Amino acid sequence: MSIVTILGAGAMGSALATPLRANGHVTRLWGTWLDDFRLDALQAGQPHPGTGVPAPEGLEYYRSDELEQSLAGADAVIISVASVGVHEVTRRAAAFLGDKLLMLTSKGFHTSPGGGIGLMPEAVREALGDPGRTLVSIGGPCKANEVAAGRLTASLYASEDADAVAGAAKLLATPDYRVQPSVDEVGLEIAAPLKNVYAIALGFADGLQERTGEPWHNLKSALFAQAVAEMSLLSGAMGGQVATAYGLAGVGDLEVTGLSGRNKVFGSRVGAGATVPQARQAMADAGLTVEGLDACRLSQGLVAQLGLGSEELPLLSAITAVLYGESEPLATLTAALRY
Amino acid sequence: MSIVTILGAGAMGSALATPLRANGHVTRLWGTWLDDFRLDALQAGQPHPGTGVPAPEGLEYYRSDELEQSLAGADAVIISVASVGVHEVTRRAAAFLGDKLLMLTSKGFHTSPGGGIGLMPEAVREALGDPGRTLVSIGGPCKANEVAAGRLTASLYASEDADAVAGAAKLLATPDYRVQPSVDEVGLEIAAPLKNVYAIALGFADGLQERTGEPWHNLKSALFAQAVAEMSLLSGAMGGQVATAYGLAGVGDLEVTGLSGRNKVFGSRVGAGATVPQARQAMADAGLTVEGLDACRLSQGLVAQLGLGSEELPLLSAITAVLYGESEPLATLTAALRY
Repeated sequence: MSIVTILGAGAMGSALATPLRANGHVTRLWGTWLDDFRLDALQAGQPHPGTGVPAPEGLEYYRSDELEQSLAGADAVIISVASVGVHEVTRRAAAFLGDKLLMLTSKGFHTSPGGGIGLMPEAVREALGDPGRTLVSIGGPCKANEVAAGRLTASLYASEDADAVAGAAKLLATPDYRVQPSVDEVGLEIAAPLKNVYAIALGFADGLQERTGEPWHNLKSALFAQAVAEMSLLSGAMGGQVATAYGLAGVGDLEVTGLSGRNKVFGSRVGAGATVPQARQAMADAGLTVEGLDACRLSQGLVAQLGLGSEELPLLSAITAVLYGESEPLATLTAALRY
Repeated sequence: MSIVTILGAGAMGSALATPLRANGHVTRLWGTWLDDFRLDALQAGQPHPGTGVPAPEGLEYYRSDELEQSLAGADAVIISVASVGVHEVTRRAAAFLGDKLLMLTSKGFHTSPGGGIGLMPEAVREALGDPGRTLVSIGGPCKANEVAAGRLTASLYASEDADAVAGAAKLLATPDYRVQPSVDEVGLEIAAPLKNVYAIALGFADGLQERTGEPWHNLKSALFAQAVAEMSLLSGAMGGQVATAYGLAGVGDLEVTGLSGRNKVFGSRVGAGATVPQARQAMADAGLTVEGLDACRLSQGLVAQLGLGSEELPLLSAITAVLYGESEPLATLTAALRY
């Protein structure tokens, strides 16, 4: 039995309490200054607002001003705050982390102080002032509400340090929450924000079906295959493995993201005939953040940084042209198909 | 302008008349002895019963007793009959085929006279008595009704003879019907029947959602990723490329098959709580053939022939145990996840 602290009481952080408690670990859920209403709900025995699932029995709660207490004596820590908060929360926690096993579910592109675009582990390592800090990246097709409810999920855990991955898997893996080990942190981390961008294109094909009353499954499938190929290429260009995109973190996560979620819904609205500004507004009015929008913009900085051109990532470039240019979606996306 | 004969007036054969006519080719559609009602409909200007789309203008029709006439002077021939008819139709056509460019859309496992399990091109080559006969395999995510209606589709065309692929692509490729060339006939052909088998498992996850009222998207995505990995492994074991499963023929075709189609529907019924015999009966009552059922059975012969074990293809083995054993689906499929 270990003591595990989850930093961040959003949907994913809270959900991971389910496998941790199933394995009998002392499980502490620390909420940021934005998480009070979530902790209130869970402590009152109500469902988590993000997952619709109540907390597992025995979960311990820490408020934002109890960060030090939440980490005292903990064996392992899972950073699971919104990507914009990763640097700040890690900085505040730094003095109490020591050499605890560190895991990370937060995903996205990270802008370094120098302006370079990197991946989320860099935000953690920058905040710790320790560029070599081992951490275990958690990814793969994992909707938080399903994990919280104990429905079967297969995750990918990646670190160059195979012992760290094994340690993390030992803490969290259950018959319902499977963990595949990997050494490819970069491949996992790059696929996570990119799949949100490509899911917008998949949603677009769904929206065309709404608009025309006819399925566009062939188009959706061609977009899917090309998205996987481009994620693979970008992983390789970043120094990750090309094969990671063919497994849980690429194919698997794109599948789950294309089935539902805000990025797909946003794309569907555009496919159904809304302009991009109209679709953005509709999502904003509903209080929904479309992660793929920011990820798309930032990905272009990364692509430029890597010296890649639009001819190497034509679909990513086309999605950018639709979202940030004035390009007509159907013509732009179909012109970008490499087939 | 060329003369192209399509052998078989089912959904896929008829659909390919759309790109061929768009390119201005003389296009002949020959129907088997089972296709009369389809040709009747098309010739009367009605929609094809399988695609819901009328024939393109200028399509020429040949009845089953006009096989020789349909092939006279043709430059290229597309074999597009139901898989059970491939050997017989090819045998009857053999004397009129000469060295015409030969393409094949029919898919499935083929049982050779000696009892060995092979792929569909072998049925053609056996019927021609020419084991080295060049033919171009046509695959990828391609629902016939969408091709017939001219909605965007990306297909994969494969042959060891790159000139043959280029010739076929030149005949059929249009802005709406894209053709990606490949040299990997085996990888394309093995993925085609397997994806029908794996789509049953994807449908099962959809059916669980019906039964429980909760999404099982994480499970569906994990099954999807593992299906791709097993298709890749089997392609390599057959002498094909492992990478073909990561493109249009694997990832892409599994995506389209998992979105709709009879294999997925059959799997959904089982996931929703029907027994396998009940689900089989319901599909039979609706006059629907579930190709993945036969493909699953035959795949086991192929796996044995290749000396592979269930530990190498655990999901395929699990689907077999559910369909042909008495195994409980959820426990069996989840036990087979390699993650």
